Amino acid sequence: MNTFTKKVMSVGEMASGAKLTVPVYSFVSENASGPNVYIQANMHGAEVQGNAVIFQLLELLQHCRLNANITLVPYANPVACNHKNGEYTLGRFDPITGVNWNRMYHFDESVIEPFSQNYIDATEEDINNDFRALMLNEIEQKLDHNIFGLTTGQRIAYQLQRLAYQADIVLDLHTGPISSKHLYCPEYAQASANYFDIPHTLLIPNDFDGAMDEATFCPWWSLQQAFEKQGRKFTMGQGLFNKESFTVELGSQEQIDLDVAKDDAVSILAYLHYKGVISNDEYQPQAMTRYACYLNDYKALYSPMGGMVDYLAEFGEVLAAGEPLARILRMDNYGDGEALHYVSLDKPVIPILHFASASVNQGTELYKVFYNYFELPES
Amino acid sequence: MNTFTKKVMSVGEMASGAKLTVPVYSFVSENASGPNVYIQANMHGAEVQGNAVIFQLLELLQHCRLNANITLVPYANPVACNHKNGEYTLGRFDPITGVNWNRMYHFDESVIEPFSQNYIDATEEDINNDFRALMLNEIEQKLDHNIFGLTTGQRIAYQLQRLAYQADIVLDLHTGPISSKHLYCPEYAQASANYFDIPHTLLIPNDFDGAMDEATFCPWWSLQQAFEKQGRKFTMGQGLFNKESFTVELGSQEQIDLDVAKDDAVSILAYLHYKGVISNDEYQPQAMTRYACYLNDYKALYSPMGGMVDYLAEFGEVLAAGEPLARILRMDNYGDGEALHYVSLDKPVIPILHFASASVNQGTELYKVFYNYFELPES
Amino acid sequence: MNTFTKKVMSVGEMASGAKLTVPVYSFVSENASGPNVYIQANMHGAEVQGNAVIFQLLELLQHCRLNANITLVPYANPVACNHKNGEYTLGRFDPITGVNWNRMYHFDESVIEPFSQNYIDATEEDINNDFRALMLNEIEQKLDHNIFGLTTGQRIAYQLQRLAYQADIVLDLHTGPISSKHLYCPEYAQASANYFDIPHTLLIPNDFDGAMDEATFCPWWSLQQAFEKQGRKFTMGQGLFNKESFTVELGSQEQIDLDVAKDDAVSILAYLHYKGVISNDEYQPQAMTRYACYLNDYKALYSPMGGMVDYLAEFGEVLAAGEPLARILRMDNYGDGEALHYVSLDKPVIPILHFASASVNQGTELYKVFYNYFELPES
Amino acid sequence: MNTFTKKVMSVGEMASGAKLTVPVYSFVSENASGPNVYIQANMHGAEVQGNAVIFQLLELLQHCRLNANITLVPYANPVACNHKNGEYTLGRFDPITGVNWNRMYHFDESVIEPFSQNYIDATEEDINNDFRALMLNEIEQKLDHNIFGLTTGQRIAYQLQRLAYQADIVLDLHTGPISSKHLYCPEYAQASANYFDIPHTLLIPNDFDGAMDEATFCPWWSLQQAFEKQGRKFTMGQGLFNKESFTVELGSQEQIDLDVAKDDAVSILAYLHYKGVISNDEYQPQAMTRYACYLNDYKALYSPMGGMVDYLAEFGEVLAAGEPLARILRMDNYGDGEALHYVSLDKPVIPILHFASASVNQGTELYKVFYNYFELPES
Repeated sequence: MNTFTKKVMSVGEMASGAKLTVPVYSFVSENASGPNVYIQANMHGAEVQGNAVIFQLLELLQHCRLNANITLVPYANPVACNHKNGEYTLGRFDPITGVNWNRMYHFDESVIEPFSQNYIDATEEDINNDFRALMLNEIEQKLDHNIFGLTTGQRIAYQLQRLAYQADIVLDLHTGPISSKHLYCPEYAQASANYFDIPHTLLIPNDFDGAMDEATFCPWWSLQQAFEKQGRKFTMGQGLFNKESFTVELGSQEQIDLDVAKDDAVSILAYLHYKGVISNDEYQPQAMTRYACYLNDYKALYSPMGGMVDYLAEFGEVLAAGEPLARILRMDNYGDGEALHYVSLDKPVIPILHFASASVNQGTELYKVFYNYFELPES
Repeated sequence: MNTFTKKVMSVGEMASGAKLTVPVYSFVSENASGPNVYIQANMHGAEVQGNAVIFQLLELLQHCRLNANITLVPYANPVACNHKNGEYTLGRFDPITGVNWNRMYHFDESVIEPFSQNYIDATEEDINNDFRALMLNEIEQKLDHNIFGLTTGQRIAYQLQRLAYQADIVLDLHTGPISSKHLYCPEYAQASANYFDIPHTLLIPNDFDGAMDEATFCPWWSLQQAFEKQGRKFTMGQGLFNKESFTVELGSQEQIDLDVAKDDAVSILAYLHYKGVISNDEYQPQAMTRYACYLNDYKALYSPMGGMVDYLAEFGEVLAAGEPLARILRMDNYGDGEALHYVSLDKPVIPILHFASASVNQGTELYKVFYNYFELPES
Repeated sequence: MNTFTKKVMSVGEMASGAKLTVPVYSFVSENASGPNVYIQANMHGAEVQGNAVIFQLLELLQHCRLNANITLVPYANPVACNHKNGEYTLGRFDPITGVNWNRMYHFDESVIEPFSQNYIDATEEDINNDFRALMLNEIEQKLDHNIFGLTTGQRIAYQLQRLAYQADIVLDLHTGPISSKHLYCPEYAQASANYFDIPHTLLIPNDFDGAMDEATFCPWWSLQQAFEKQGRKFTMGQGLFNKESFTVELGSQEQIDLDVAKDDAVSILAYLHYKGVISNDEYQPQAMTRYACYLNDYKALYSPMGGMVDYLAEFGEVLAAGEPLARILRMDNYGDGEALHYVSLDKPVIPILHFASASVNQGTELYKVFYNYFELPES
Repeated sequence: MNTFTKKVMSVGEMASGAKLTVPVYSFVSENASGPNVYIQANMHGAEVQGNAVIFQLLELLQHCRLNANITLVPYANPVACNHKNGEYTLGRFDPITGVNWNRMYHFDESVIEPFSQNYIDATEEDINNDFRALMLNEIEQKLDHNIFGLTTGQRIAYQLQRLAYQADIVLDLHTGPISSKHLYCPEYAQASANYFDIPHTLLIPNDFDGAMDEATFCPWWSLQQAFEKQGRKFTMGQGLFNKESFTVELGSQEQIDLDVAKDDAVSILAYLHYKGVISNDEYQPQAMTRYACYLNDYKALYSPMGGMVDYLAEFGEVLAAGEPLARILRMDNYGDGEALHYVSLDKPVIPILHFASASVNQGTELYKVFYNYFELPES
């Protein structure tokens, strides 16, 4: 049975001086032949189910054959996860500034080109070690050398990023508002999406927009591109560049279900088995039709009116063109107007998630849908 | 086909001067032999399903044989129903003062005794008309003669109460957070609870605590008591005192479901048929086991710790003593403490509702349960 | 120089398991001849200035001659004081339930009568010790013996009350929204109000409504009344019944000013010197006109309309009848209505506090004023 | 006396169907020789003082000699200005999405280059008219031709932008949290900053980041640059390119002061007189030292710890290097740590604004300061 260590990382202080901490669990493999793994959950306050998945992963990993180090971080953002707003948890952004907690990671592309020039002839091992050291140093600089200080979210994000930079594979566990399971997957890692028990995959471009997944794969992808420009070819997802990051959307926010969490932990272990992190043949992906969609075609539909919404469309099933996604009740119009308004789209779509409340303003995001979807090719 | 009229009542103004209004729908019966009815919905901001029930009632009532006047008021509290708080709707209390929107109605018991003395020998018709006029005048005084003004909630409550005072039967449509259907029923009206398709009934004492149901039945109940003290006997629920008020809890907040709303509308029509408000034999209550519980035995269970809750107990089924209602995840304890904590009670209970979010502070209300329940006797 | 001890009391847990604690500072006097003192601050989240006053009291008390024990508790409610809501702190009530944090203390009047009968002939020392023990036991029962648990606020309140019950004099440091300094003083303790450097005193009846000041003086006052009914006479504020509690309103919320806090600390020391808690003649009350008003005459004025308010009336000065307290801007009426609306009252009043924001709904509390004020008689 | 017209523009709907509207006031000059003007206020919910300034402008402009058309829009964003959050107004961002209301305007730079090529030889009048028409058409397309709808904020922003595009000069009236008066001024319009009675000017680069000021001057500035590349030279701020936009920060949020508003209205009239919009020599800028700072040097200082802040630095005065901006109270450290922590910077700075509350988390923005300031050269 594998043992893990537990450390506690301090990430924030509140007005009373109360310190907010994050537990960090680490398995260290004696036979570290596979890619190292970093898994975190609950960067967004209301998206708590990932903590239950980490609970189940800790239970299961103690009985696996480990080929690499694995670090797991539940409650990654205790500032957000403790921020109750009435009965609910205020979640996706810093309530003081409005900045999305998952858009505060750091990556400065300008360091890539010089590094690639200096290491054009270096060994893969040197590239791996020194590039990682460079990235880590970037973060240390941000954390420690700033007379103006850091925002609340930067302080948290940079500390998590420092942990994540020590891994090759990064899984950031999130949820939607009311949502099906879906996976954010970099385009180059599309083949890996077949190993998660998740029927919907969003293929994201290899650009940095501040999120954890991007912050961890973009440096490597940029480096691979820079080497290629200078004539040294590597393939993303293989060898030195066997680096993959995913945002795993586990379903709906504001919910803990430990039984479903076990299924999701098993799904993650199937992926880790595929990548050689563990050697336990019992963890295999389920057979299912997996749909994919490019990020550009992942469309939000905004409410054409204020009102109260009866969400009709089922998640994960194709909804025919013209069929209603929702009907909006407008009692103020009853008797002298249209009390029910149906919302539909002009093409078949796969609904992925919808807004968390029936009450919407004009312009509230009602649904997100795969607008041009296709079956994910089996790898 | 019956026609209704629609009026618009102004109940509030916001900082920009925007006026908030409430639509008031009225059916006037030519054959007004039965008790008049007042139905409102959405006094609490997030409890929107009652609006859909009123939609379905308006659809169905146009095709009923009416024996009395019926007034229906959706969006009863637009200040609350428009108050978004992040993604959700802030619901049960005025967000500036913390006062529950459904504790602001008015009843001054001191007017009862003098009235009963003056009307000890009056005809039932005079009592009915003059007592109603007295109650209405009380409200008019509150609305119009106060140099210090009214709170936001009083202004709304008193205007609704003015409408409700013109009826004999009052239904206030609410929901719980995440909840089964249940009914708040005055103890004297217990027999009527058998005519709603609602399996759980809370029997409330005949006391005034500021809510709409109490504000409408307590004056009549107090009057009946006062007459009795002077030797003139009436029976609550019959003849002159055929006055009943219920708070109907339709299920969970933050949801609109027009199909379920139709079921609830049909359930309400079965009760109205029983009371002689409509003459449509097709509306009959369903056969079901109905459980009841006195308000004193309706217990809230508060979380013994902060954490993330996996709610386990099913609503509406008896949970054996010692069986877990919930398990609380505490990842910060994983590895060096108890990561899972089970919550149970010492007696069999019927869980009725639970908190709306998995994330709780120490002391957050987890569940409400029927702690000493019994089968509601058939009438 | 006096030394103090510091203990840390655990009062709550958040969703991540983070514990919230309260520091408790205690001076123990070797010469404990005077009444013991309990001072707390920041029970309401946004009312932070009391923490600065406790800072200054700790600085000054180390250099005083102490005749009694003094306990000081800043950050009394860390759940509330850490609850940021956008830029501001959500303050006066539990944001989940709406219940005012300062209405959750416990007092069960039914224990008084039996105690007074049992102790009708007891010595003053026995009465003092045993009544205190009874009160403490009541609180212990609430904290420890409840299968349904406690609300978040009860757990905090009862722990603070346990500390306060060990003292004879209780000061609960609060602030208004935007406010002058004022003092809530029980009617029987009116003479003591002259020893604070606070120009406005509210005389409150001797009734329990859930607040800390009431929770600490009402038991003693009720006991004194019960003894009197049985023919044993004591005077409140003297001897055995030298028990006084005040809510000290230090000015406006959301502000820390350490210099002003020093003035307020000195004002409190003048009162403590008067009561014999310290023997330092340098602490004397300032000469000033002190106005008083009965709680019944402390009137809130609610906005007659939604709009944006230019608060005109100065605090603490008499405003003549008919003079405007505020003018409300309604730009939506400019050009075709009244863009400015003036608000005034029919009598001279002393404005004490006003709402924290210019933007109000119809029915928002604009001002609180002394409506029938008088000069506080010098003692 | 000039007359104005008033129109009402519908900008949003809430859950109850309530419509939110914006009043639009227009003066049309018979002698339209000067640049047309657009002034709006209250795009951020809590920043209400601009409404009072528009009130005073409406009062004064009726008595001016107008040489151009002027449009004034108070309550520009009623969704935000009506969004109370407890006692305060939630202000700078959409509370559902976190997106800053003043970052949702539209500008697509890609239309500039083709236009400049087509109009390289056109008359100034044709350029002016057709470019304005092009910009307006861009906005119309956004408003009317989108099957996925618009966000709440886009719908508001685009409607305001449509009005602003008809003007040459745009003033967007804002406030800081607790703040001195300051002006956001495009670098090319620096000379104009001398005509406002505002002692602090931020010089912003000519880039588009989504704000109203940028959205209105950037198209013209980009066009001027595009012409210049092709050899046709114009000067920004003159002739055809006499287009200027400013964000005017009027002081602190959550406050209305009609007297101060009159001063600010007079200051704006001095600028409008300078630009030839009005011909009233009595409106002249005050003599004062005006400081300026480039946006890059406008620094936010983030709190190094959670705590309660006593803001010490005065606005608008140079604070010497090393002098404290603030002291942070940490009572939890009293007795066994540092209870007071002083915050200072390494250079002389001019403090411009600070956070709205004393209670801060670690990482909350404490102050914004001019870090490298200089005297604004007189024009």
